[in-house]
Parts: sequence; structure tokens; C-alpha cells
Amino acid sequence: MDEIEVEYCTEADLDDPVFVEGLPGVGHVGKLVAEHLIEEADSTRIARVYSEHFPPQVGIDEDGVASLAHAEIYAIETEGRDLVVLTGDHQAGDSMGHYHLAAAFLDEAERQGADTVYALGGVPTGELIEEYSVLGAVSEESIREELEAVGVEFRSEEPTGGIVGTSGLLLGLGGRRGFDAACLMGETSGYLVDPKSARAVLEILQDRLNFEVPFEALDDRAEEMEEVINRLQDMEEAQSPGSGEDLRYIG
Amino acid sequence: MDEIEVEYCTEADLDDPVFVEGLPGVGHVGKLVAEHLIEEADSTRIARVYSEHFPPQVGIDEDGVASLAHAEIYAIETEGRDLVVLTGDHQAGDSMGHYHLAAAFLDEAERQGADTVYALGGVPTGELIEEYSVLGAVSEESIREELEAVGVEFRSEEPTGGIVGTSGLLLGLGGRRGFDAACLMGETSGYLVDPKSARAVLEILQDRLNFEVPFEALDDRAEEMEEVINRLQDMEEAQSPGSGEDLRYIG
Amino acid sequence: MDEIEVEYCTEADLDDPVFVEGLPGVGHVGKLVAEHLIEEADSTRIARVYSEHFPPQVGIDEDGVASLAHAEIYAIETEGRDLVVLTGDHQAGDSMGHYHLAAAFLDEAERQGADTVYALGGVPTGELIEEYSVLGAVSEESIREELEAVGVEFRSEEPTGGIVGTSGLLLGLGGRRGFDAACLMGETSGYLVDPKSARAVLEILQDRLNFEVPFEALDDRAEEMEEVINRLQDMEEAQSPGSGEDLRYIG
Amino acid sequence: MDEIEVEYCTEADLDDPVFVEGLPGVGHVGKLVAEHLIEEADSTRIARVYSEHFPPQVGIDEDGVASLAHAEIYAIETEGRDLVVLTGDHQAGDSMGHYHLAAAFLDEAERQGADTVYALGGVPTGELIEEYSVLGAVSEESIREELEAVGVEFRSEEPTGGIVGTSGLLLGLGGRRGFDAACLMGETSGYLVDPKSARAVLEILQDRLNFEVPFEALDDRAEEMEEVINRLQDMEEAQSPGSGEDLRYIG
Repeated sequence: MDEIEVEYCTEADLDDPVFVEGLPGVGHVGKLVAEHLIEEADSTRIARVYSEHFPPQVGIDEDGVASLAHAEIYAIETEGRDLVVLTGDHQAGDSMGHYHLAAAFLDEAERQGADTVYALGGVPTGELIEEYSVLGAVSEESIREELEAVGVEFRSEEPTGGIVGTSGLLLGLGGRRGFDAACLMGETSGYLVDPKSARAVLEILQDRLNFEVPFEALDDRAEEMEEVINRLQDMEEAQSPGSGEDLRYIG
Repeated sequence: MDEIEVEYCTEADLDDPVFVEGLPGVGHVGKLVAEHLIEEADSTRIARVYSEHFPPQVGIDEDGVASLAHAEIYAIETEGRDLVVLTGDHQAGDSMGHYHLAAAFLDEAERQGADTVYALGGVPTGELIEEYSVLGAVSEESIREELEAVGVEFRSEEPTGGIVGTSGLLLGLGGRRGFDAACLMGETSGYLVDPKSARAVLEILQDRLNFEVPFEALDDRAEEMEEVINRLQDMEEAQSPGSGEDLRYIG
Repeated sequence: MDEIEVEYCTEADLDDPVFVEGLPGVGHVGKLVAEHLIEEADSTRIARVYSEHFPPQVGIDEDGVASLAHAEIYAIETEGRDLVVLTGDHQAGDSMGHYHLAAAFLDEAERQGADTVYALGGVPTGELIEEYSVLGAVSEESIREELEAVGVEFRSEEPTGGIVGTSGLLLGLGGRRGFDAACLMGETSGYLVDPKSARAVLEILQDRLNFEVPFEALDDRAEEMEEVINRLQDMEEAQSPGSGEDLRYIG
Repeated sequence: MDEIEVEYCTEADLDDPVFVEGLPGVGHVGKLVAEHLIEEADSTRIARVYSEHFPPQVGIDEDGVASLAHAEIYAIETEGRDLVVLTGDHQAGDSMGHYHLAAAFLDEAERQGADTVYALGGVPTGELIEEYSVLGAVSEESIREELEAVGVEFRSEEPTGGIVGTSGLLLGLGGRRGFDAACLMGETSGYLVDPKSARAVLEILQDRLNFEVPFEALDDRAEEMEEVINRLQDMEEAQSPGSGEDLRYIG
């Protein structure tokens, strides 16, 4: 196997598509959006990307069949802009691997004719969220206005620590290679998988690219997460029975 | 020395052999089976594999003679299917090393004419085991039936975290290269070297490949482990004398 | 992208310049001096250095625009010796990266016609500092006298643990390549960003190279840090009210 | 700089020399012997070995002059067998670096005409030592007898965990390349720099190779260490005054 190996599945014939990345990260926001798009819209897998920078690992499916760690690229045709969606279960395990994989992903974006890249993710606030804002960062100032028009917020020097991993590099390397690249980051507590934050990012994406997918599946997952949180709170109360009432006020 | 260096010892002339891997891992299950096969069956060492991805280390034998960290490949002729058995004291120390070594092991499998790979290992349950099941995972669904026929269990999306290391990659890379690859994982507590779990895996392997080796040595090691566990429990009781009786109920 | 990529911005025409390095490190002393020089003197950015040895990360500016992790090189014309100043937000993340980047920085020094290198940094004392000494280390004993003449102190086998990272390698690799290289290390507690230590290093540099820049901005930052320290002490006192008076004596 | 770079200083004209390695390790036993030989015998530095596998670091000497991390090779003429002695302040920081550096050291041994390698080190016992035995390990059983004849002990499968780092690889890689290689390991508590253990190893080496150097300097260092240990014990007693007498029995 080469350092990075792209296995092509089906040829796609997309019209001026946008490259959308949703790999695992804070609150799994980006991955939730990407998976929702793949399930709810008219999607075709066009490639698998294998790499020795992914962990030496296989995943096991419902039939006991193993698949080597990889990322997947899907073509999605919409009534608005077409999409090329990158998702998967892993990010690179080392710094050099991050650079090489991000470069390979941009090669695939180019191959599909995309000149715009949206890297999706979450930005941790450390607190439970009432209203789910979406924070933006761009490769060039000229892209900012069209994103602000659909509700993306831009805040000076935020996120404070910059953007790390594939999303950051798609912005940084993508910008240097001439892509119009933006990162759309849903605010999320950072403690849990956050389908509500994913919905906020998806709404922005739909507005910007003029397509629509049903939200039900994402809302269902949000409800499941609510139940998980409630169960966790109940367990905590059960463990410290005397302080139960106080906890209800706080939580 | 090259990144990976294979030193051939004896030429083997095997008939349609199966490649069997048993390197160190959970409960040392895979390694116990591999070593037992090498000792109890008619085995010949055919190659040593050295690599700078193994730790920078030598082992010392009973005569004080050092040998550089390596893996070993043995040819075993049985009354059923012949075997090519890979074992050793080390796995790769880095992710890239895992990929490169697994690829080299598959090259050797190919060189010996094997088109089937069985990667042996343990799967941790976190509890003491009463009945030793063997969990399976396969590179293609078509292989599953013949393994279920000899008692291998398949459970949806288990092991939950996938399979990591050489066993995982032999399945993942092997499947991509056209091998029929399966992982056979003996259930084990995960806390101790587990000869009983190894025996369970070996029984499956014998049934599947129509050969037989005596179990005595493995049973003896199982008894030794029982004694170790008993001594550990005695020590624990001695340290908390008052709670001795209770512990007997728990342990 | 290559392993290391230098992107040239403006051509500079400097007269026998000195190469000055100020990357992040102990007390951020070196970086504070470098940034102060770039802001207060007549500076032009001449190059950006990108590398896969930097973290896979972008920084976000006040307009929400991302820039890929990089180091920057500035040309500064002064009334004394001209300067080529290297600064940035990152050091290499791995040992090999440190060696390769330091070599690339020396290539740029050579390209600008510099044959002298001053690596700026801090040396931790573990205590609050009254008088800010500047410790020196040199690639050749012949350079020592001219630095002692402007107040740099040399102490036998200090810093005890040697000098690690880019500053150390500019001295070590630079000396081997024929540069006159010195490391100027401001004493600093090591616990906080230290503009006072930076001022001490800057004064030495000015004396040695016959230029002058205003100190106000650095003094302002020093005052801000004083306030931060005071606030931290107040918070500590508030948390342990009974021991408040004692703390004032200690701090 | 290349991955590994050998800088030759003086040409040596040795007669059938033995290559002796003493890099930092358990109890600094190997390094103490190597340094003692270099200081007490008629030694000439013949090469410095630089490598990006050493830490990115310079050491500072008594004059404030920096030297890049490196290993050194000395030629020593004795009334018995001549020696080529390797020492330094660092081992490689990564597994691959260990393999590449050990190979480079063997190249230098070959270049000087050595066909025998003695890797010196310590073996930790976890207890204070009364009588300093020297444990041996060899690349070939045939070398064992001549070492037993001068008092080296061989114990089945000891050291239990094998031998790690440069010493281990000189044995493992050296043996594979046809060198007669042995590791001589002085028993040492493992907690402190141990000149007494170094003396024990040196005596063996002298007997085997028919040369003599004065021991005074090593004995002085041993006395200094005794004082350090006594001071540490006094400090411990001072901290727990009531239990002072008991401690004397234990220590």
C-alpha cells in the first residue's frame, strides 16, 4: 500500500460542486452533518481514501465484516449546488500525516471540479448552549460577506487557539492553493455528541447553497442525546440523594 | 539493515497452506496458540523478519546469547491443511510500522502459496470467563458460514472498538489484496495470560482445518495460571485479614 | 506542499545584516524582542516559512481570516547593523523537524548575506527576578569578548541542561556551517511572559549593533503583566482569606 | 546536515583494535568506564558523530561555548589490545534512530579494523550492591568461554527484559554483520550513578584485553557518591526524626 491510496468506486458527473468536509472532531458536529447529508440526499460513494497515517485498525460492521480504516468521499446532487462530501471515522495520527492527507483531500476536490471548500466542525464553549450560533473563518476576506449574509458569525481572532487538524489544514493549505475555503463551526458545549449544533451548521449550509434535506433524523438523534443527558443527571442525583433538588436548579 | 529484512532459513514445500498469525496481544491468546502449534506439531522455521519498526532490543536465551528483535515464520505440515505460522515477541512500535510490517507478512504468506489468513487473538471481556467463546471477524461475508459451522460466533459490530494492530491489518490489508482473511478472537478477561482461551481458539482452528495436536502442554499452562491466580488471591486476603471470608465469596 | 516551503514576499537589500531569531520559548523573551523590533523599527516582511513539521493548524486574525502555521522573516534597516529577524508562533513538533527547520533558517540567513546569528531566548531561574541579567553562549570563543563588552554574562557550563530547540540548533548547526552564532538569554522566572527580561535582551542587542528603538510598547506590556500578577495574587488571597496578610510578605 | 554525519578529526593507526561502547544508560556504568579510559589512557579523538536522531540541543562548556549534540570516537593505544572507544551524552530519541545510529557506529568499528565489539552498561538489581558482579551476553556462544575465564557471569535468560538501546543493537546488529559482540553489564542498584560498578566492568575489560589504567579517579568518584548517599540519608532522617534509628538499620 502507498502512503495514501485512493480507491475510486463510481464516476460522478457533478456541476460546479462544493467540497464539504465532516470528519470526527469537537461534538462530532462536522461528521454528523456529513453523515446526515449522505443519508438524506441523493448520494453516491465515489472514493475511499486509505492511508498509513490512519490508525492500524479495522472497523467491524453488523455482519462481522472488517473494513480497513479509511475516509470516504460521496457525490451529492441537490436542487442547488452539488456537493462532494468527505467523511470517515479517523483523522491522521501524526502531524505530517495531517498535512499529507489534507493535500490528498484537496487533490480529490480538484479532481471533482470543486473550487470552494467548506470544512465543518464544532467550536467548544465549555457551557451548555441555548442558542446555537455558527462561527466562521475564511481563507480570504472576500468570502466572508456571503457567509455573514446567511447568518455565520465572525469574531476577531476566534477560535482563540486557531483551528487544528484536517479542517484547519483545508483552510490553510486550500487557501494557499487558490480554493475559496471556509470553516463553519457550530457552537457546542464540547462534552457530548451534539446533533443540535449539527442542525445549526446544516441550516447555514442549505441557505448558502440553496438545497434542502429533511431534518427529522437529526432531530431524532438530538432527542436521544437529551435522554442520555437526563439519564446521566438522574444517575448523578441517585448517587448524591441529599443534594438532588439543588442539582435540578443547576442542570 | 533495510527497513524490513526477511532472512530465509529453510525452504518449505507446503500444500495449499493457511497463514496463521499469533503475535503478542490481549491475554497473549494468539501467541500461545502459535507457540503451542510450533512445539506440538511437525514444524520447521522458514524465516526471521527483522525491522527497525520493532523495538531497539535484543532478547537473551538460556546460554546468554542475544538475538535481535524479530518475528518468526514456521512451516507446519499436518494431516489436514498445512500451516504457515507467524509469531514473535513484538509488534511494531508506530502506526506506519504496523502497516509496513503487515504488508511484509502478507508478502510472505503469498510467497508460501497461502490464500487464506487466520489472525489469532483475544478479545477482553473485563470479567472472569466461564465458557470460552471465540468471536470472529472476516474480510468477506462469504467466509463467515464455514467459521460459524465450527462454532465461531459473530456479533454485530463487535469488537466495539474494531481490531487494532497486526491482526486488524492482516484482515484489512489482506482483504484488499484478495486474501480470504479472518480474525479468531478468544474471549478472555484481559487481565492475565490466558491458556484456556488459547485452547478454545485452537479447538476451532483444528475443527476448521482438520488436524489435531495434543492439548496437554496448554492445559498444564492453564493449571499454572490457576495457581498464580490463587496465590494472588491469598496474598490479597493476607493483606486484609478481616475481610478474608468476604473475598472468597466475591473472587 | 514540500516538507519545508519558503514563500518570498519582498526582496530586501540589506548591508551586512545580522540574523536574529525570536521564536516562542521560555518567558516568550525571544519572541517579545523580535516582535518589538518588527513593530518599532523600519521592517519589511521578506519571507514566510511553511512546514509539515509545524502543527497542523491555522491561526485566525481579527477579520476571521485563517493563516497556515508558519514562521516569518523580516528585513529591518537600522542606523547601525541591519537585521534579518525570524519570528513566528510555532517551533517544530519533532526532533527531526527541529534539525531540518534550523537548517532552512540558516539557508535564509545565508541568502540575505548574514554571517552572524543571534538566537534570542529566556533562561528560567525559578524565582522572581530583581535584576535582569542576560546570559550568553557562543559557537566560538572568539565571539565572547565583544558580547561581554556590552554586558552579556558567561557562566561555566550554564544553562546546565544546555539549550534546546531552534535557538540551540542555530548555535550548534550555525557554528558548524561557519556562522558566528550566539545565544542571548534573558533571565526570567519562567512562569510568565516576561517583557522586562525582553527589554534587558533588547538593550544588549542595541548596544552590540548600534541601533535604537523606543522601549515604550515593551514597558507598557511589562505594566500589563504586573497587573496580571497582582490580580492573580488578589485572587489567591481571596481564596484563603485568613492567610491574606502572610501572603503579602511572601509575594 | 545528513541524517547521520561523521566528522573525522585525526587518523589513527591501531593494531587489531576492539570497539568499546559506553553511552549513557543504567547507573551511567558504560559511560563512566569509557570516560575513565579516555582520560587515563593515551587517547586521541578520531571522530564526532552528529545526527538528527539526537535531541535538538547544544551543550555548553566551561567557556560558554556550545557544541551540537553528538557522540565521540577515540583511539586508545594500550600495552595490550588497542581500543576504539565510543561515548557521548545522548542516545537516539526514536526507535528507527537507534537502528540507524547503531549501524553507523558499526561502520566506524569496521573502518578502524575492529572485528570485536564490547558494549558496556549496567544492569539494575533494585537493591544496594555488596559485591559487584558483571553479567554478560554474547552474539555467539563461542565468545562466552573467554569472558567467563575473566569472571563474567552468564545467567539463563538474563537480563529478563533483554537489552535495550545502543548496547542491545550493537550486540544484535553486530552479530548479524559478523562481529564478535558482547555486552558487559555491571550490577548496580539502578538508582544512582555508580562508579563502583564501573570499576568492576573496567577490571574485567583489563583482564580480557591485557592493559592497565590507574583506578584512582574512579575510586574518587565512588567516594563522592558515598558522600552524596550519606547526605541523602541524613536529610531523610532529619525529616522524620523519630524514626531515625530504625532507618539506619534499613539503609
